[in-house]
Amino acid sequence: MTKVTRRGLLSMAGVGGVGAAAGLAAGFLGHDAVAGAEPPPQPDSDTVPFHGERQAGITTPAQDRLHMAAFDVVTEDRDELIALLKDWTAAAAAMTAGKEAGATGAVNGPYDAPPEDTGEALGLSAGRLTLTFGFGPTLFEKDGTARFGLEGRRPAALIDLPHFPGDDLQEQRTGGDLVVQACSDDPQVAVHAIRNLARIAFGKAHVRWSQLGFGRTSSTSRAQQTPRNLFGFKDGTNNVKAEDGGLLDEHVWVPAGAPAPEAWMEGGSYLVARRIRMHIEIWDRTSLREQEGLIGRTKAEGAPLSGGTEFTAPDFGAKGWADAPLIATDAHVRIAHPSQNSGVRMLRRGYNFTDGSDGLGHLDAGLFFIAFVTDPRTHYVPMQSAMARQDSLSVEYLVHTGSGLFAVPPGVRPGGYVGEGLFPA
Amino acid sequence: MTKVTRRGLLSMAGVGGVGAAAGLAAGFLGHDAVAGAEPPPQPDSDTVPFHGERQAGITTPAQDRLHMAAFDVVTEDRDELIALLKDWTAAAAAMTAGKEAGATGAVNGPYDAPPEDTGEALGLSAGRLTLTFGFGPTLFEKDGTARFGLEGRRPAALIDLPHFPGDDLQEQRTGGDLVVQACSDDPQVAVHAIRNLARIAFGKAHVRWSQLGFGRTSSTSRAQQTPRNLFGFKDGTNNVKAEDGGLLDEHVWVPAGAPAPEAWMEGGSYLVARRIRMHIEIWDRTSLREQEGLIGRTKAEGAPLSGGTEFTAPDFGAKGWADAPLIATDAHVRIAHPSQNSGVRMLRRGYNFTDGSDGLGHLDAGLFFIAFVTDPRTHYVPMQSAMARQDSLSVEYLVHTGSGLFAVPPGVRPGGYVGEGLFPA
Ligand code: HEM
Ligand code: HEM
Ligand code: HEM
Ligand code: HEM
Repeated sequence: MTKVTRRGLLSMAGVGGVGAAAGLAAGFLGHDAVAGAEPPPQPDSDTVPFHGERQAGITTPAQDRLHMAAFDVVTEDRDELIALLKDWTAAAAAMTAGKEAGATGAVNGPYDAPPEDTGEALGLSAGRLTLTFGFGPTLFEKDGTARFGLEGRRPAALIDLPHFPGDDLQEQRTGGDLVVQACSDDPQVAVHAIRNLARIAFGKAHVRWSQLGFGRTSSTSRAQQTPRNLFGFKDGTNNVKAEDGGLLDEHVWVPAGAPAPEAWMEGGSYLVARRIRMHIEIWDRTSLREQEGLIGRTKAEGAPLSGGTEFTAPDFGAKGWADAPLIATDAHVRIAHPSQNSGVRMLRRGYNFTDGSDGLGHLDAGLFFIAFVTDPRTHYVPMQSAMARQDSLSVEYLVHTGSGLFAVPPGVRPGGYVGEGLFPA
Repeated sequence: MTKVTRRGLLSMAGVGGVGAAAGLAAGFLGHDAVAGAEPPPQPDSDTVPFHGERQAGITTPAQDRLHMAAFDVVTEDRDELIALLKDWTAAAAAMTAGKEAGATGAVNGPYDAPPEDTGEALGLSAGRLTLTFGFGPTLFEKDGTARFGLEGRRPAALIDLPHFPGDDLQEQRTGGDLVVQACSDDPQVAVHAIRNLARIAFGKAHVRWSQLGFGRTSSTSRAQQTPRNLFGFKDGTNNVKAEDGGLLDEHVWVPAGAPAPEAWMEGGSYLVARRIRMHIEIWDRTSLREQEGLIGRTKAEGAPLSGGTEFTAPDFGAKGWADAPLIATDAHVRIAHPSQNSGVRMLRRGYNFTDGSDGLGHLDAGLFFIAFVTDPRTHYVPMQSAMARQDSLSVEYLVHTGSGLFAVPPGVRPGGYVGEGLFPA
């Protein structure tokens, strides 16, 4: 399973120098090469390129595990923020290539300094790690005052999300100036990445919230099997997928032609994150009939209740016994369908979570909903409003306990840094 | 990656019956076969046998992921407790074989009843799932009063753990009448198993606490690579391993010859669980020298600081510069070594965890320590006491925030149920 990667090789290279007389190893690799200056790794099916027109981790076929963290920036100095974004970019390029976060890594730096990598991913492969960065509304302004010289740069689409009926948001799971989505097939790799970015941020930004997702709940490529969420249903069937070029341009990416202060977002996207607690114990005591009716699809195959197989289009006009619609009027897939939402779609990329117990004897489990959209004003808020009012699944079985909206800038070209367009030289 | 298993086949078998006219599927498979009555699955490298002399999940080569849950029994009826243990046994035998928790599974039961499996593991392989059951002190007596007719059956070794210096135990992460350790290479499989056992327990027992572990921190077989904990060090090097037959008998299994009321524990073991928060942010800012000194091993290879390679025995007498011992007197591996502990050893089987943030800007991360020992009075309490006082790693970087001690009965023979010996007919 574990492949030998540059990360593995680096650590092995270190072994000779440490070992028996560990005290002697101090500083023997004290060059100051930056991570980005190392020779590019061998292309490997296990790594996802970091640089490119778009950030990775959006249309990348959804990896199995997630660690997402939102950060509060604790400095108010523009140069320090830029320096942080540059440091993060270098570390992200290295880690996604299966290398350690810093040039000298966990074991090859000076013996009397803290290591430049925390070491728990030594010997693991890159596990298709992607790191996707975003900016929250509070990075641009707080209490009506602009920060970091970003007057007028906050995109109009980066709204403060409204309160939706039924929301029970916890302050300590909501918001954040910066967000990092780490996805990998190996959770230890995803946790390692977030932890090293937090380490690098010391003194500039600290973790506001973080969320581990143990199982993906969406397929984002036609090459993937549709996974299941904790209601036991296939999730991702009718998702926008990597292969849907035109749909991506229409519904996911920010188009060209924005007014000048927002031009830095062209080719980017908006990330909606919602921590949705699911009442799984209650759900587990409802009948299969009720469950399928609430979703509007069969549990076994994920076919619409109007007939066919998983990828058959739902027929919302189809009627059954006593003229009742086969897909109920309050079914989730009806209310979330483009035909009910002025044609809008989203790229969903959520994860199942469980965070221990709720203190009442239930598991604190649910779906960490992540979606990428071209504009949350048209592509998220109306649908969520409809769901919060009419969708029986949402009304009866779901509670939103955390929330975030982030502007995800376009990809990074080699030599650049994430969000560079926001900070003209 | 995903193998076709009986679980997968079962769900496919259901597809024909559901689909278009889902409403017609009701009850078409209404036989009342119990899970255990189904034909045994094909032997598969991906399943670990459930039945046997010992419970699985102890010497089983440590799987990658953990979901552990402790339960409070809410009935005081002995027969209901026994019925629960029988139901759990049947479901555990089925799920560890890659089957669904109940006979009709997520999709083949009567359409107007809750499904007998929650469905989120449909299509996944067994992922080497093991389920290991244990009994806490409070199952036997509460507030000095015996429960379930178990007067005099509480083993002397199932003590109330003492308070150790520095302990900061949270009530809602501590104790429990019953414990279930679910280990699998796939976290979705482990979470599914705990959730279905909780579902089956409804009305009889509820979840007191649960813990997800995303990365194993111990190897328990010589065939495994040594993994790393969140301090970035290899963990498990000098663990007791599956191949150590004699050591297992001496240090892990409860021997024959116990007094009659405890005879039901022969061939079992004691499970110590400690949720240990690690101050990783502070650790990450200490030098490599300090880190290696605190552990007593090198970070790269895990070799003792007295020299050699990973599996070289540490030489605690070896001295270096200025006559200082190469392995410091307060180093973790010295204080935990059998030579300092009357020769005792333990089988460690812990997992890395991260549970979001602590609200101060740090990750709430650490090591969920699990050990199996023949008797916690000799094999855990003295070592933990020494560590809490002398081991600088523990004193400076660790806080114990949760705790549990459980009697793990021997394995289940086909037709029996877990803990049967405790309830003579
Ligand atoms: C990513 C953000 C953070 C990192 C990397 C971090 C890291 C550290 C480090 C390295 C130390 C060790 C001593 C030192 O250097 O001062 C420390 C100690 C401490 N931190 Fe943080 N910290 C972060 C955020 C915070 C925040 C936001 C708070 C409080 C609001 C906080 C509260 C403390 C306290 C009280 C200690 C003292 C602990 C002790 O020595 O017993 N930290 N932290
Ligand atoms: C715990 C929360 C949720 C669960 C369990 C859930 C479950 C599902 C399921 C099973 C499907 C059908 C399969 C598929 O096409 O992927 C689906 C579809 C969908 N869901 Fe959700 N969902 C949840 C929350 C949300 C939220 C918050 C939104 C957006 C506001 C949303 C938007 C959609 C959309 C757009 C579709 C596709 C509809 C279509 O085009 O057919 N879902 N969901
Ligand atoms: C494994 C243990 C548990 C399971 C499987 C479970 C399951 C359920 C189920 C199925 C319901 C739906 C309604 C019903 O059947 O009554 C429910 C509701 C509820 N449970 Fe639990 N429960 C558990 C433990 C607890 C505990 C220990 C408490 C409180 C101390 C609790 C508090 C509640 C409350 C307040 C509701 C009502 C929620 C509502 O309908 O809005 N539950 N639980
Ligand atoms: C966060 C907490 C802990 C960390 C990070 C940690 C780390 C380590 C490391 C890196 C090793 C050396 C490699 C090995 O032989 O496995 C080790 C060994 C060991 N640890 Fe821990 N440990 C922790 C807690 C504990 C606790 C609570 C105990 C028992 C009370 C314990 C008992 C042992 C034992 C018995 C050994 C083997 C010593 C030998 O025979 O050489 N550890 N630990």
